[in-house]
Amino acid sequence: MNEFVSIQLERNSKEPLYLQLSNSIYSLIEQNKLRSNAKLPAIRKLAELLKVNNSTVVNAYKHLENKNILYSQKGSGTYISPIPLEKLSTNIPQINQTTKHHVEITKDTLNLATISISPELFPVQDFKRLLNTVLDKDGGNAFNYQDSQGYLPLRESICDYLGYHNVRTTPDKIQIISGAQQGIDILSKGLLHYGDVLFVEKPTYRGAIANFQSRGAKIIEIPLEEDGIDLDVLENNMKLFHPKFIYIMSYYQNPTGISYSLEKKHALIKLANKYDTYIIEDDYLGGLNYSNEPYIPLKAFDYKNRVIYIKTFSKILMPGLRFGFIVLPQKILQSVLAAKHTTDIATSGLIQRTFDLYLRSNLWKKHIKEMCNYYQKRYELLVLELSTLSDHLSFVLPHGGLSIWVKFKNVNVEDLTAKLLSKNVLVSPASAFSLDPEIYPYIRLSFADVELERIPEAISIIKEIVQSQNNKAISIEPLL
Amino acid sequence: MNEFVSIQLERNSKEPLYLQLSNSIYSLIEQNKLRSNAKLPAIRKLAELLKVNNSTVVNAYKHLENKNILYSQKGSGTYISPIPLEKLSTNIPQINQTTKHHVEITKDTLNLATISISPELFPVQDFKRLLNTVLDKDGGNAFNYQDSQGYLPLRESICDYLGYHNVRTTPDKIQIISGAQQGIDILSKGLLHYGDVLFVEKPTYRGAIANFQSRGAKIIEIPLEEDGIDLDVLENNMKLFHPKFIYIMSYYQNPTGISYSLEKKHALIKLANKYDTYIIEDDYLGGLNYSNEPYIPLKAFDYKNRVIYIKTFSKILMPGLRFGFIVLPQKILQSVLAAKHTTDIATSGLIQRTFDLYLRSNLWKKHIKEMCNYYQKRYELLVLELSTLSDHLSFVLPHGGLSIWVKFKNVNVEDLTAKLLSKNVLVSPASAFSLDPEIYPYIRLSFADVELERIPEAISIIKEIVQSQNNKAISIEPLL
Repeated sequence: MNEFVSIQLERNSKEPLYLQLSNSIYSLIEQNKLRSNAKLPAIRKLAELLKVNNSTVVNAYKHLENKNILYSQKGSGTYISPIPLEKLSTNIPQINQTTKHHVEITKDTLNLATISISPELFPVQDFKRLLNTVLDKDGGNAFNYQDSQGYLPLRESICDYLGYHNVRTTPDKIQIISGAQQGIDILSKGLLHYGDVLFVEKPTYRGAIANFQSRGAKIIEIPLEEDGIDLDVLENNMKLFHPKFIYIMSYYQNPTGISYSLEKKHALIKLANKYDTYIIEDDYLGGLNYSNEPYIPLKAFDYKNRVIYIKTFSKILMPGLRFGFIVLPQKILQSVLAAKHTTDIATSGLIQRTFDLYLRSNLWKKHIKEMCNYYQKRYELLVLELSTLSDHLSFVLPHGGLSIWVKFKNVNVEDLTAKLLSKNVLVSPASAFSLDPEIYPYIRLSFADVELERIPEAISIIKEIVQSQNNKAISIEPLL
Repeated sequence: MNEFVSIQLERNSKEPLYLQLSNSIYSLIEQNKLRSNAKLPAIRKLAELLKVNNSTVVNAYKHLENKNILYSQKGSGTYISPIPLEKLSTNIPQINQTTKHHVEITKDTLNLATISISPELFPVQDFKRLLNTVLDKDGGNAFNYQDSQGYLPLRESICDYLGYHNVRTTPDKIQIISGAQQGIDILSKGLLHYGDVLFVEKPTYRGAIANFQSRGAKIIEIPLEEDGIDLDVLENNMKLFHPKFIYIMSYYQNPTGISYSLEKKHALIKLANKYDTYIIEDDYLGGLNYSNEPYIPLKAFDYKNRVIYIKTFSKILMPGLRFGFIVLPQKILQSVLAAKHTTDIATSGLIQRTFDLYLRSNLWKKHIKEMCNYYQKRYELLVLELSTLSDHLSFVLPHGGLSIWVKFKNVNVEDLTAKLLSKNVLVSPASAFSLDPEIYPYIRLSFADVELERIPEAISIIKEIVQSQNNKAISIEPLL
């Protein structure tokens, strides 16, 4: 309640007390003294503190609620809405791709920023053989226009692949795409209109945010917990904003590495159904599992037809393939198909036919197994190395994936990132994953393209900088 | 002036005469009795006809001009604006891809609708050899993420290719795309905001219109003449609407087959500069030339940096390649690059590297020459066959390309199209190429995928239907 002590009400003013109180609360929000989703004091308590009637506080809260600045939750209290009204009526500034620092990557660079696997792990020989099989078998047809929805035999083999992961669907529900980013793009086109609201996890993948913004959509960030999105905050926001969809990553979320619990998966589908919205599940890494937890996509539980499932093989197979697929609820099939046609007509027939053979030959099973074995070693070593730095950092152990989301103590992570860059070590700080200008004390450390034997070197460089920062005895309070 | 005779003004009404006259003219526009860009009567003449003062007509014209319903041109007169105000404030309805008839194409089908070349003409063996060269040489790198702008050696070889066609540019101005449709898509994203106005040729390619519409843009269609866009109508509209860009096809325009004269090319660049806008030149077929006229893209004359040049090889090489490039003016480079990144990160590295070798080996020169020889025979035969039907149709002879835009006399082309379909002959009627619901008496007949020996068969089926239509002695006045 400390923030509220500062509120001064003028009893002799012409302005009603409840309006003065409303404005005071609004100012506190504007000054960032009250944060999104923070709980407001109980009515009686605030009335006592300010020496006003209960009804003054009730009216002030109601006034702000009508403006969507606050929201109330039955039996729980009143909260700060995640986006103040004036933001909802303007566009969030575009992320400018061009202001990114250009970084020269050499073979000496310790690249803990990328989540793309090393090119030497790509199954190039398998693909070369299959490419030639396609060219011998299909000739010019491999280079002709394809059905916009995708090559039918491939959509059939994708159904088999999905069945293996407990997702049951039919070829008519599948849309072939040129990579996950295109999946996001055509869903934007097919589902979003200018000014629509959608939800994303906070933090999340900026490439998705940039695309949604380019459609003129309003984006609301919902915080993540260790087992998935914060369901209370989610529901409160659903009541207020009727989102077109919620964009999530159910496994090894980028950047936090968290995976959704079974309970949260079920609850999420129920909520989507209750509030008549969709969930876009971006399964960008699924299957790269080092734990005993089974890998079952959210889509497998989708008995309400609420999940739009995007699957790419870019990350764990070959990013330059530019290939993936979406499984769509019947209701939105046609608008997404039309969006694909308007976007680039169809995905390369040669790649589609080659990937069809790749799936049918079950080569993907062998590849995923090899990738798991290969990356589990790096994962375990990175965890071991990081645990020697427990005075300076902490992390939630992910069940799989290619990175660890590390929380630093008493360290300015932007400063740390810059110092690491000067030592030819690349990392991804938290600011790369949210619209919120606030700096969180997190860095994503990826092991997708760092040789096993160089992991200790990377960690010792981090250690050196962190310890020298601390030795300067500048105690910086963590912001989150 | 016939339409104006019907105007009735009430001299005893409270409503001023000039407003009554304004409303009457507006009604005539609404009833389609006055068409876009039609010239209004001279002030004195209309005043005489309606027995009112000159000032009444002046005020009525001015009133409608203020509402952008009319526009005036100095020394020339007053005209009907191409889009009435109320249309400018609402969205033009989306083209619905899904309502298209689904047509079963068999080997018996006479497909004069497609402008994609026959798959047996694709240089598959050359590509197969080059693909394998890339895989042997580059291994996994061919499947890794590529620079969003495109593979640098390819951008260099594109500069050489362009130099051969008198377009001089540098690799930093080139953006690699996954086909021309994606070029249109990322230009939409990079340049258009909701509600922006742009111009297209009338008629034009519907895939472009559908994309621009999906960005919430307002589209104004500017009529074509035999040597390019109507410059007077264009300039009048530029004064009124400040378009973000003008989308044109400079060679063998789709669907009309016309090519721009040298004079119109120069004039177009001058106008774009004067009114501070861009021209998107979609060079979808350029080079497939059967005349002695040289093939020089508009971009070659672009001394003012006003031309955005989209080049695809889909149509004359292999549509399933999903490959092309854009040459961009410096000023818009960064926003288009960001749009590409948001859309699909990058175009397939394997295809880019293979195409680089294809360009460097100069195999494209051989291929274009072969295509020209091959299609010129079909073109000449189709022209010959059509000339036997001169009682029923006429056409402007295109300098090249893959189709002829045929104007029918006393024939309902929608009816003709349906009858042809029932006889397994596919054609593209005018309604497929414009937003205007008015039916023009044109059909596009393409010879991209009809065997030479079957062209007479197709024409004889058309002849049969047309003659039987005429024998019914239902004289339908051509609408254009």
